[in-house]
Amino acid sequence: MIPRYARPEMIAIWDAQTRFKIWFEIEAHAADALAELGVIPKQAAAKIWEKAGNATFDVARIDEIEAQTKHDVIAFLTHLAEIVGPEARFVHQGMTSSDVLDTCLSVQLARASDLLVCGVERVLAALKTRALEHMYSVRIGRSHGIHAEPTTFGITLAGFYAEFSRAKDRLVAAKAEIATCAISGAVGTFAQIDPRVEAHVAAQMGLTIEPVSTQVIPRDRHAAFFCALAVVASSIERLATEIRHMQRTEVLEAEEFFSEGQKGSSAMPHKRNPVLTENLTGLARLVRSAAVPALENVALWHERDISHSSVERGIGPDATIHLDFALHRLAGVVEKLLIYPDRMKANLDLLGGLHNSQRVLLALTQAGASREEAYSLVQANAMAVWSMPSPRPSDAFLTRLRADPKVTALLRSDHLTSLFDDSHHFAQVDTIFARVFG
Amino acid sequence: MIPRYARPEMIAIWDAQTRFKIWFEIEAHAADALAELGVIPKQAAAKIWEKAGNATFDVARIDEIEAQTKHDVIAFLTHLAEIVGPEARFVHQGMTSSDVLDTCLSVQLARASDLLVCGVERVLAALKTRALEHMYSVRIGRSHGIHAEPTTFGITLAGFYAEFSRAKDRLVAAKAEIATCAISGAVGTFAQIDPRVEAHVAAQMGLTIEPVSTQVIPRDRHAAFFCALAVVASSIERLATEIRHMQRTEVLEAEEFFSEGQKGSSAMPHKRNPVLTENLTGLARLVRSAAVPALENVALWHERDISHSSVERGIGPDATIHLDFALHRLAGVVEKLLIYPDRMKANLDLLGGLHNSQRVLLALTQAGASREEAYSLVQANAMAVWSMPSPRPSDAFLTRLRADPKVTALLRSDHLTSLFDDSHHFAQVDTIFARVFG
Amino acid sequence: MIPRYARPEMIAIWDAQTRFKIWFEIEAHAADALAELGVIPKQAAAKIWEKAGNATFDVARIDEIEAQTKHDVIAFLTHLAEIVGPEARFVHQGMTSSDVLDTCLSVQLARASDLLVCGVERVLAALKTRALEHMYSVRIGRSHGIHAEPTTFGITLAGFYAEFSRAKDRLVAAKAEIATCAISGAVGTFAQIDPRVEAHVAAQMGLTIEPVSTQVIPRDRHAAFFCALAVVASSIERLATEIRHMQRTEVLEAEEFFSEGQKGSSAMPHKRNPVLTENLTGLARLVRSAAVPALENVALWHERDISHSSVERGIGPDATIHLDFALHRLAGVVEKLLIYPDRMKANLDLLGGLHNSQRVLLALTQAGASREEAYSLVQANAMAVWSMPSPRPSDAFLTRLRADPKVTALLRSDHLTSLFDDSHHFAQVDTIFARVFG
Amino acid sequence: MIPRYARPEMIAIWDAQTRFKIWFEIEAHAADALAELGVIPKQAAAKIWEKAGNATFDVARIDEIEAQTKHDVIAFLTHLAEIVGPEARFVHQGMTSSDVLDTCLSVQLARASDLLVCGVERVLAALKTRALEHMYSVRIGRSHGIHAEPTTFGITLAGFYAEFSRAKDRLVAAKAEIATCAISGAVGTFAQIDPRVEAHVAAQMGLTIEPVSTQVIPRDRHAAFFCALAVVASSIERLATEIRHMQRTEVLEAEEFFSEGQKGSSAMPHKRNPVLTENLTGLARLVRSAAVPALENVALWHERDISHSSVERGIGPDATIHLDFALHRLAGVVEKLLIYPDRMKANLDLLGGLHNSQRVLLALTQAGASREEAYSLVQANAMAVWSMPSPRPSDAFLTRLRADPKVTALLRSDHLTSLFDDSHHFAQVDTIFARVFG
Repeated sequence: MIPRYARPEMIAIWDAQTRFKIWFEIEAHAADALAELGVIPKQAAAKIWEKAGNATFDVARIDEIEAQTKHDVIAFLTHLAEIVGPEARFVHQGMTSSDVLDTCLSVQLARASDLLVCGVERVLAALKTRALEHMYSVRIGRSHGIHAEPTTFGITLAGFYAEFSRAKDRLVAAKAEIATCAISGAVGTFAQIDPRVEAHVAAQMGLTIEPVSTQVIPRDRHAAFFCALAVVASSIERLATEIRHMQRTEVLEAEEFFSEGQKGSSAMPHKRNPVLTENLTGLARLVRSAAVPALENVALWHERDISHSSVERGIGPDATIHLDFALHRLAGVVEKLLIYPDRMKANLDLLGGLHNSQRVLLALTQAGASREEAYSLVQANAMAVWSMPSPRPSDAFLTRLRADPKVTALLRSDHLTSLFDDSHHFAQVDTIFARVFG
Repeated sequence: MIPRYARPEMIAIWDAQTRFKIWFEIEAHAADALAELGVIPKQAAAKIWEKAGNATFDVARIDEIEAQTKHDVIAFLTHLAEIVGPEARFVHQGMTSSDVLDTCLSVQLARASDLLVCGVERVLAALKTRALEHMYSVRIGRSHGIHAEPTTFGITLAGFYAEFSRAKDRLVAAKAEIATCAISGAVGTFAQIDPRVEAHVAAQMGLTIEPVSTQVIPRDRHAAFFCALAVVASSIERLATEIRHMQRTEVLEAEEFFSEGQKGSSAMPHKRNPVLTENLTGLARLVRSAAVPALENVALWHERDISHSSVERGIGPDATIHLDFALHRLAGVVEKLLIYPDRMKANLDLLGGLHNSQRVLLALTQAGASREEAYSLVQANAMAVWSMPSPRPSDAFLTRLRADPKVTALLRSDHLTSLFDDSHHFAQVDTIFARVFG
Repeated sequence: MIPRYARPEMIAIWDAQTRFKIWFEIEAHAADALAELGVIPKQAAAKIWEKAGNATFDVARIDEIEAQTKHDVIAFLTHLAEIVGPEARFVHQGMTSSDVLDTCLSVQLARASDLLVCGVERVLAALKTRALEHMYSVRIGRSHGIHAEPTTFGITLAGFYAEFSRAKDRLVAAKAEIATCAISGAVGTFAQIDPRVEAHVAAQMGLTIEPVSTQVIPRDRHAAFFCALAVVASSIERLATEIRHMQRTEVLEAEEFFSEGQKGSSAMPHKRNPVLTENLTGLARLVRSAAVPALENVALWHERDISHSSVERGIGPDATIHLDFALHRLAGVVEKLLIYPDRMKANLDLLGGLHNSQRVLLALTQAGASREEAYSLVQANAMAVWSMPSPRPSDAFLTRLRADPKVTALLRSDHLTSLFDDSHHFAQVDTIFARVFG
Repeated sequence: MIPRYARPEMIAIWDAQTRFKIWFEIEAHAADALAELGVIPKQAAAKIWEKAGNATFDVARIDEIEAQTKHDVIAFLTHLAEIVGPEARFVHQGMTSSDVLDTCLSVQLARASDLLVCGVERVLAALKTRALEHMYSVRIGRSHGIHAEPTTFGITLAGFYAEFSRAKDRLVAAKAEIATCAISGAVGTFAQIDPRVEAHVAAQMGLTIEPVSTQVIPRDRHAAFFCALAVVASSIERLATEIRHMQRTEVLEAEEFFSEGQKGSSAMPHKRNPVLTENLTGLARLVRSAAVPALENVALWHERDISHSSVERGIGPDATIHLDFALHRLAGVVEKLLIYPDRMKANLDLLGGLHNSQRVLLALTQAGASREEAYSLVQANAMAVWSMPSPRPSDAFLTRLRADPKVTALLRSDHLTSLFDDSHHFAQVDTIFARVFG
């Protein structure tokens, strides 16, 4: 985990104190259920809560015990016994370490999911605000990096809104996948523990029961979780890439906010760089890198091996913390993005009206030309304009077409002119917005 | 795509003829909608279906045209014009190549999903049959590859059934993600085409409309799709790994079916190897390898670049074909798996009853020993049995405990004996089966 | 393997006939060595060559036998016996299938490496030619997509030349890693075969001996091989990305060659898209996707399991074929790249001379200003120019500085002017070229 | 970075103080060179060393400045100015941040490589010791997890020794790839700085010069570096997997050392689990996960973008720290591995002598049977023994063969018996050892 790409809220989910607190809650709720079932004395279960319910656990002490026993849960239980006293022997009855560890991880990932959903919602709010603001900010659409036909910046942002709505759905589904509880004993048979204990702990911790655990919760769930994060990270990369492109010197249709006192470069004082979105591009790579090891974790041996553990100690916090940070960084970028409609307009005209080549093509076809003939005709005129030095006159293409007798034989002058009315391109903007924003 | 790991049903989805057929249907349905809207003549739309609706497309001819135009959709349209005649100029009006290509890919992936779901269902059926058959086939549960406590092979299979039920859910969700239609024109603005065309084509092709396309359907959908496949592949790997472990010479609790005339090794005639499940392990790696490039495909530039295309030409067929094959190979392995309950029973006893160490530990705790004391007491006796040569007498551990005065001071002899009654471990098998199979 | 991204030379390495030819050669050379050692009759070895040395193997027949025996090498040997006759029983003596399969794979990968090196050499030649041609074609250097300081297109290409020289070194090293021969028997002990057979076959096939094989050649070698390919693919992506950026409409400093009759878009006849470099970007992702499964293949069980095999049937041909194709496609792009020095010059001036901000900063520092003061002074003036509409007068920055008394207090007018002499930036071009081209 | 999988030596390379120390050295050596060239006063260069050469940098102060300037190198230089005083304005002259950052990263990765090589050397030493110790510890070789033919544990370890020798070579090569210095200015043109400064700093820092840098050192080098680490990690996984298999209850040919007071399971006191090698399996996945983002980092835009930076802040320390830890953990496992030759011997006999099936096959062939007939004959007898309950009499296969008249018609009884003399399998152990250990 890289501290500079981390928010305290998400860090807190993964710190040692939180983990021990969750472990305690699992054990204490299990004790309640065991007491209810008559397996352990009710006053023992009460004592556990009484003595340790508000405890701050001594992380250093637990580490010290673990150094000796080489077992983290035993170390925790030993420390818990120091706090609880003799009733501690009723703790963890019939349970195995994984019951605690895996259920805790479920709680942490479920909480992390909630935070991530909040992050996406902030991104969505920012995208919606800016989309409505720039619903009709006209700009050139680009395929292959080459001017294609006009669109609006609002449509661009609406598309990202739709994508991040899917991101939210994916995170909600990922949480549902991961939020399960297993208190099923050493090999998942409930041999030493009643399934009702699992049901009780699950309900108390906000989880559902795992239908069949082995010793562990099956890792296909975790793989699906981290893959979902990887997809969300890739959507972040796409939006970041869009902004980076827009901020290129030659394009400059938008810029990341550049604060007072900020320095773009130690050497070149004139620089204003899209460093936040470049950073988001890198963070996306980092978050994605959790997917492969999570997938490799699925095929544990028999009822479990512990190879997944070190992986999850890494990717659990790292992927959630960095994605959480990235979502908020992205939201901030969108919220404060400097947007330049004038420059969008200027760029639109760079190719001298070539962005209407399709409309001319269609009109020629409808006027009776075969698709092939029409294409050749338009392409020939377009290439002539293409080879003019930039910036071309904004009506360069229309002028050329008007001078081509093969064109004018099929299309009257006013018809030709009408094909260059850009408003035609924006007739469905409200349809698109209605689809996305309802 | 590796032919030996492919079934004809899935190959067919990806062959050139199918692709051109789908392209045609998209174009022809679009023509219908355009005719309905009065953009093109109704009899032109009718003629398109009439002339080409049952056509077999000449793949070699299309390739030939593409070699010249360097554009696959134009090559197809040119060939279609050769079939349809003059009305061909009404085809593709206001559409862009990606409208055809992306919607076709959606159709192919949706159909592939359906086949994959069938494959999973065959795996599920096989797992259920064998699980019910071996509901009470007792075997040792293993954590870390080391004997832990008893379970049944039925529970193992029920767990896989639950996992593959999730696999099915993931594939169903993946299909829903991917099954969208975009007929929105060059930059997604519907500038030259009415959104009702998209709605019509979507309905006819069994898709939903894409709320905002750029020139393309956003690739986060495809990334999610291939990630879902990767998770399913990892579940295959886990089951394959379980069987490979079971077939190890020293374990031999199950074996892949070995047919008459089969040869396990060119050099060693005695060999019967789990080659199918090893192969499935490799196929899982192959299917998973589609996830990263699919994630890298998301961040296309602006309204689109074409970098995703070559990737999808590879992973589209490869991942679906190999996963489909793997599911059926896996189902076959499970259906015909040779299962050896006697050997499971023999293996269970290998450690001389140590698999009841937890029950002794719990009994001592309940009899008043602290968790620490009880643990030391049981561990000391267990390690003595552990160091006996294998195979140990099946009651070796009980014998030792009976001879330990520290143990007998806390537990009476008949109580001790009762702890070694294995039936205790299977009390919840029906609970688990009810969770999984209802 | 995607046929449209494949060259026949590389395909040939992987076709069935070539594979059987190599298998035969391995068996026949081994027979020679066995005959020399007196294990089999010399005339048997001679007969093997005589009967099958120029044979075309019947691939369909071998497939047919394999369908029955479920073992590819046995199927081949059975077919070989049909060709060779009774002496066939002296073939494969003491060998195991992997001796043949793995040594064959080494031969194929070694030959593939040679082809890949040829591909890189073509790229290098193209880069050198164009670098020398454009050694002093001035263009703006860009960091973060933002204009930084001038460079030359020759330097850009020289940098890529250096990178592809490393690519060549990596491929040469990868070949050396992979080009080993193992004829060591069922578990690598040479129990049934003399190590001198391995040495003979290795020498004849252009390989070195594998110091310790198990049943197979250890897969860390193959992992290293495919990782090397992945790095080369990433270098291709970088050059492809550079060209894609250069071809953007707003930049247009270079363009992929656009042939007569080519169509950029089915809908928009004006388009000229960098489709080859976009395709290379996608191919890079595909080639890279071989790295992870190759790494996952390393940890085979004990003396071997066969999980690697299906993976290698995929990535072996796919990664080498697509990388080979990509290298030649890239070379073609560079060879024919349309390069526009005038546009480079025009872009250079877009920011009104801000690209000299560092030189002004340094001059102010040397004139006595603290780094902090100088930075603030330059940044303030630069931001004023930055906020001017584009295109700015090419001397906009100089004009502003001349009007700032805090600047002129430290720098005389002619000194200021001299800082805007761009030739200063190119003083070391020859040094850089000497480093790269010698 | 996960603290529990980290050694202080490697952590130290990556801590803030070390980084600032390296930054300082780069700046101070550059100042020396600049002074030598007459660009800055010699006594300024001297003063820089004098004031800050032994300084401990105030990390919190630097963080504070960075929070304001949002630029790490500027923050450092500002703090350095606080230490050095007015001469600080001669620091960083003509340099850009990346000159410092990238050269520093090279130093860190080079030092990390040295530590990793030490780790591999410890693994090699342990492997050699144990290999010589168990040169003739006979065990069954296993292909597909199934008994094949005998080998020795010494051969197994010798094979790993050879693999880790390659690992060492890869790390040495990776260091050479990465250990370059770039002091070439904002876009790599040396516009503001003499190339001799770079040469001086390179020599002082133990690096070679980067032939062409842009603003940064090209990232194909880093990709190759992290791929090399990934391959080494996979080799660790293979050895870890071997040991995990050996420790399985049914096999138990070796065990990880189990210390006094260690607890294998919180629930089951009898457990001794291969937790270290399972952990190594997981760490291998983590280290490997650096490869993909490193490959994605290569294609930076133009002269650079900063997307690589966040990735490297993660994978730089994480991959090197975890690999370093893993190598030492692995070395410890091998050094203290409990090895059980008696159990190896017992396992060898489990299949009743079937491991000699190939020798019988060969003898029958040499006695005149066709390969096909001989195979059928041996397979039929072998399958009969295979289906006997385990453990079989150690001479079960020989007994069966002696009773088969088709066999005895070809092979005399004493010949048959001689084929079951296992010593034949070990005739080349010394050859193999000579290849590996010289």
